[in-house]
Amino acid sequence: MTQASAPGKVYFFGEHAVVYGKPAIACAIDLRTNVGVKSSRDDSVYFVSNRKKIHIQRSPYIHETLKILSENYDIPLSGFRLIIKSTLPKASGLGSSAALVIATIGAISEEFGLNISREHIASIGHEVEKNVQGRASPTDTYISTFGGVYRMPDKVRLPTPQLTFVIGDTKTSSSTKELVEHVANLRQRYGFVDNIINAIGELCREGERYFVKGDVERIGELMLMNHSLLEVLGVGSRKLRKLVDAAMEGGAYGAKLTGAGGGGCIISITCEDRVDEISDRIKRCGGRAYVVHPTDEGLVL
Amino acid sequence: MTQASAPGKVYFFGEHAVVYGKPAIACAIDLRTNVGVKSSRDDSVYFVSNRKKIHIQRSPYIHETLKILSENYDIPLSGFRLIIKSTLPKASGLGSSAALVIATIGAISEEFGLNISREHIASIGHEVEKNVQGRASPTDTYISTFGGVYRMPDKVRLPTPQLTFVIGDTKTSSSTKELVEHVANLRQRYGFVDNIINAIGELCREGERYFVKGDVERIGELMLMNHSLLEVLGVGSRKLRKLVDAAMEGGAYGAKLTGAGGGGCIISITCEDRVDEISDRIKRCGGRAYVVHPTDEGLVL
Repeated sequence: MTQASAPGKVYFFGEHAVVYGKPAIACAIDLRTNVGVKSSRDDSVYFVSNRKKIHIQRSPYIHETLKILSENYDIPLSGFRLIIKSTLPKASGLGSSAALVIATIGAISEEFGLNISREHIASIGHEVEKNVQGRASPTDTYISTFGGVYRMPDKVRLPTPQLTFVIGDTKTSSSTKELVEHVANLRQRYGFVDNIINAIGELCREGERYFVKGDVERIGELMLMNHSLLEVLGVGSRKLRKLVDAAMEGGAYGAKLTGAGGGGCIISITCEDRVDEISDRIKRCGGRAYVVHPTDEGLVL
Repeated sequence: MTQASAPGKVYFFGEHAVVYGKPAIACAIDLRTNVGVKSSRDDSVYFVSNRKKIHIQRSPYIHETLKILSENYDIPLSGFRLIIKSTLPKASGLGSSAALVIATIGAISEEFGLNISREHIASIGHEVEKNVQGRASPTDTYISTFGGVYRMPDKVRLPTPQLTFVIGDTKTSSSTKELVEHVANLRQRYGFVDNIINAIGELCREGERYFVKGDVERIGELMLMNHSLLEVLGVGSRKLRKLVDAAMEGGAYGAKLTGAGGGGCIISITCEDRVDEISDRIKRCGGRAYVVHPTDEGLVL
């Protein structure tokens, strides 16, 4: 069986503002989705985590991936069995769909000796997400392919900082589409929303300097400010705020929601010593805690 | 005995940004300080609330007020007894010092037939606060003198909205000087802080339109956004956030810290129906709740 794995990702800065042309800084994390491929008349997808098996057609991301690959390469549209193993929580803003798509492309490319370049894998992945979701940022699939830290959309690689993430999952999902629309409506209603969006963009540019310097405390301070700016835009929530506060009380350098907001996850950054304290506080608030690290490993075949 | 009373005040929008030349909207509330004056060899100040009597010299605001008045008018510097009765919590960002000063000027003016104009009373009051504190906004003493709702610093009168305030007191004090310095330091450190300050200024201009329209829900929505912007500037606190959340969960239209932040009070706006619910929730979070209304009555002789 041919296997490939791809990482999830978090946003240090810039989500939502990036929709309006501002920069964002995203980072691959060492929660990964592993896809194994073998020939089979099954045409099935088997999820190891919940021991569920479904027909390939009923997995929109995998189906769309195979469709695009078969349109561009000499591979069949069917006759596979995929086995999916993932440590990434789904629909939590950590890029699980992108990781699934990139790992699938990687596994298929290996299985059939297609030798698709990484740049091309990233762009096919973006195509898949666009088709399934209606629209998609290129960030998730790009980061999942290449790993490391990038300023998007310009795809500028930044030094990977030495730090530990404690991710707090609110265990509630949200609609990215609705949250993006909410911000758009707010922007139509109030002119000063552009000042907020500009502020986030400037904050991101400011934050980039601290990746170069490796100043984790400043990165943390800016993350906290970024979170409050996202709350102004109305994409925060009480649960997200609770987890941010819990992480800060546990001694984190900084914390903020990651991704669309509304529900999903927060990320906090810290040194290794404080990891247990922060995880405990997150759990006590009703969240699920994951201790992860930035990873330079994108798609691995 | 001659008496005068003057109201406290809250900020709808704009505190902290007003330091940088942005507009702010402040509103007199019906918590008042009453000052009674009579001739006496005592030279004392008696506080009805805690039954404490002190020498006039030991009350910096009253002492400075009498000093300036005696320099400008034919009144003695001593030979008084002042009786102070107030429903305004001290040092809570509700303008209790200004109310004390304005009511004192008013009472002295009445007692000695000085007929000081309101404009002049407000400016003497500002002088007193400046001398005692080192620096002072003209807002507190102006609003206390004139009552109603004003956009400062331009002193533009706005329509008084029909609403009820539920004020939540964190029962913790803070240093205005330190908080103003904190914002100044943040502004030196990060360029995007100017975007935040501009956003608050624009938000205030936006909010002014809704006073004209009497749209309390929109005023509330903007107050909440103003609060989050103040959190970005680092003048929020967990307790203030808790009370804001409590008020919103009680069904308020909006809520925010008022004044310097750090500690002090939040204000929430609502209709009369929800007042008990909101007050209860504020108390359950450890805050003290005051139900007050905007007042058009400034200094009353």
